[in-house]
Amino acid sequence: MPLDQLQPDLKLAATLFDSLSRTTRIGRGIVRDSYGAGEQAAHDLMRGAAGELGLEISVDAIGNLMMTLPGRDRSAPRIIIGSHLDSVPQGGNYDGAAGVVAGLCALSALQRAGIDGECDITVMGIRAEESAWFDIAYLGSGGAFGLLDPACLSIPRSDNGRSLEATLIEHGFDTQAIRERRPLLDPKRIRAYLELHIEQGPTLVAERLPAAVVTGIRGCKRFRNARCIGRYGHSGAVNRPHRHDAVAATVALLHHLETVWLRQEQAGADLVITSGEFYTDPAMHGPSKIAGETHFVIDVRSVSDATMNEVAAEARRAAETIGAAYRVTFDLGATSDSPPAVMDLKLRESLRAQLERPFEMPSGAGHDAAVFAKMGIPTGMIFVRNEHGSHNPDEAMTLEDFEVATRALLGLLRDFPLS
Amino acid sequence: MPLDQLQPDLKLAATLFDSLSRTTRIGRGIVRDSYGAGEQAAHDLMRGAAGELGLEISVDAIGNLMMTLPGRDRSAPRIIIGSHLDSVPQGGNYDGAAGVVAGLCALSALQRAGIDGECDITVMGIRAEESAWFDIAYLGSGGAFGLLDPACLSIPRSDNGRSLEATLIEHGFDTQAIRERRPLLDPKRIRAYLELHIEQGPTLVAERLPAAVVTGIRGCKRFRNARCIGRYGHSGAVNRPHRHDAVAATVALLHHLETVWLRQEQAGADLVITSGEFYTDPAMHGPSKIAGETHFVIDVRSVSDATMNEVAAEARRAAETIGAAYRVTFDLGATSDSPPAVMDLKLRESLRAQLERPFEMPSGAGHDAAVFAKMGIPTGMIFVRNEHGSHNPDEAMTLEDFEVATRALLGLLRDFPLS
Repeated sequence: MPLDQLQPDLKLAATLFDSLSRTTRIGRGIVRDSYGAGEQAAHDLMRGAAGELGLEISVDAIGNLMMTLPGRDRSAPRIIIGSHLDSVPQGGNYDGAAGVVAGLCALSALQRAGIDGECDITVMGIRAEESAWFDIAYLGSGGAFGLLDPACLSIPRSDNGRSLEATLIEHGFDTQAIRERRPLLDPKRIRAYLELHIEQGPTLVAERLPAAVVTGIRGCKRFRNARCIGRYGHSGAVNRPHRHDAVAATVALLHHLETVWLRQEQAGADLVITSGEFYTDPAMHGPSKIAGETHFVIDVRSVSDATMNEVAAEARRAAETIGAAYRVTFDLGATSDSPPAVMDLKLRESLRAQLERPFEMPSGAGHDAAVFAKMGIPTGMIFVRNEHGSHNPDEAMTLEDFEVATRALLGLLRDFPLS
Repeated sequence: MPLDQLQPDLKLAATLFDSLSRTTRIGRGIVRDSYGAGEQAAHDLMRGAAGELGLEISVDAIGNLMMTLPGRDRSAPRIIIGSHLDSVPQGGNYDGAAGVVAGLCALSALQRAGIDGECDITVMGIRAEESAWFDIAYLGSGGAFGLLDPACLSIPRSDNGRSLEATLIEHGFDTQAIRERRPLLDPKRIRAYLELHIEQGPTLVAERLPAAVVTGIRGCKRFRNARCIGRYGHSGAVNRPHRHDAVAATVALLHHLETVWLRQEQAGADLVITSGEFYTDPAMHGPSKIAGETHFVIDVRSVSDATMNEVAAEARRAAETIGAAYRVTFDLGATSDSPPAVMDLKLRESLRAQLERPFEMPSGAGHDAAVFAKMGIPTGMIFVRNEHGSHNPDEAMTLEDFEVATRALLGLLRDFPLS
């Protein structure tokens, strides 16, 4: 069936976005607290819609919602279309939820067109991806694969102090699954994982494009607690050759890393480098003092592990030479690493083919898709244009752009590539 | 009389430094609180020594101590050898006091050698130069020339809250002089002002030299409250072309200023540039955020007003171009300016001639000498080598180095140049 006859159910989308907004807004922003009342309300809405579509509904041990359109061969590995239904405090209506709504609209379209899938297609409402209230991300997808450290059960909810364990039990979920690291999904039984998500940066707005195929989810290599130790001195009385200026040395290091970034970009590498925290010691610094210490972050992200490793190694080399030149000592500390997740090449190709103006870009933020990809499941992602960034009440996605991306998902389901 | 027969009275110096240390040390450091008990104790010690030397002693309306060896022509403009007797809290024994002790040792030597000066020579124990307790520097020298804003009388002492006015009255001084801006010294009646001071930086230690002639006292042009306003963003999700990264832009600006500094140095200019405070907003920054704001200081110092003006203008130009390139806005704010003070060329020459290994350097820190120079009085300064910087209990000046500098002062008095 040609795609123009296979239309995503936009009426359903409009209804669901409207219900989500009305039900989970507190003040100006959206509050879908992970494993709390807000997230549950979103799950209830999706479950209601799935019921009306006649989908098979189940909830796994830790609360992930599975809404399935049965395929011709029910024993074949299934396709999962998933996203999270929680938000950050005072977040927006689309981050996360758009992916679940897109899945339901796609299944509704397949049903209306009378198309039986080759295999089951499950829309998965994933728990607690943001997990802003529990200080550990990917609870739902990580838990589905038995990846969570059972110690996470004692993490307190940031506002009421109740442990994750108590919270899960209160909602009728089974903490034994986490305690035993029991997988709830078998990666071998999943043919592909697909996720639609709003873009969290400004690229698509700037490019004037409604949607983009995601090449990969950037990993992160972060010097979280880097320091430069120099020596405090009088800003007037100490000439350059006798200075141990921690700010000057840190500026030199960060400037050098910017040249490294430019060089990598020119060589075609995917890379962003950010120092989002940088401070002299307020108890010790002063306007007429040379700074004796700085604290800073170096956050390196790329879809390529090799690129991140090169940059981190160069940062350490430069810290040595610049430290010596400025008579200071850098203590960059260990990096905290999260590896990049590569999207499946065939799924990327196929998604590109669905777009009128094909455009690819990496995802800088993390997504549940990264967890599925790391489990070896062929994974594809599509971004929808979104103004004002995410994690704030001003997220702005149009239904027109949502339609473009959801049609691409539908097209992919029709032309599903063998992986 | 040849200089080798004109020896500074080092026994007196040793006695006075020892008494000062015993009398004004509290715990590990020196506490000569401006217009307080510590400073008064130092004044009393100097006054006692001057009495034993038979010098004429007087105290001006605001407490400056004048200890005079009469000259042959008592109506001729006099020479003042001065320095301050207060310290910072937990300071060292030599910052300030060394200059007064040197003056007394020189006068003692002249007396013992039976030399009558051409004119009166006054050793001046100046009040409250550091003025760490009153948040306004140069109280003694500024007040001596009627330069103080009478509003300063209401400044509270930082520890006990008593106003400067109440404190002065309590010590029997005349606040009317300050209220009327009445000069206590007539610049025309001062032939020269000379000051010996420990170096507050590490240059002489590094150069392995006991003393240096000061070329001038650096002025300061300071952007005290500079800011860079960008936009917060996700460190992974926003690529370079869409960033408004306040840290990256500030790093670029400060790096540019370092190249300006190097260029000026290569052209022979005297200059130091320091950013001693630099911070992102702790309430807003984060390790996975692009910083939307920085606060920083740019402190520019030189003995040349022209050099400081050039650097400040270049900072403003660069803030424009770098701001545009990084899509941020710099708000450098107004500068707070203190002009440089140039030392008298003939006095410099003459002091150089007294040193076995002549060496000249600017003073980065301010001194009472700057006030005298700004009044148009020919002013000369000599630095003594000092380890560990000043304003701390570890100041370390040897009597050998002190002797070298004091002999230079004595030599200058013998060969006094006409200005």
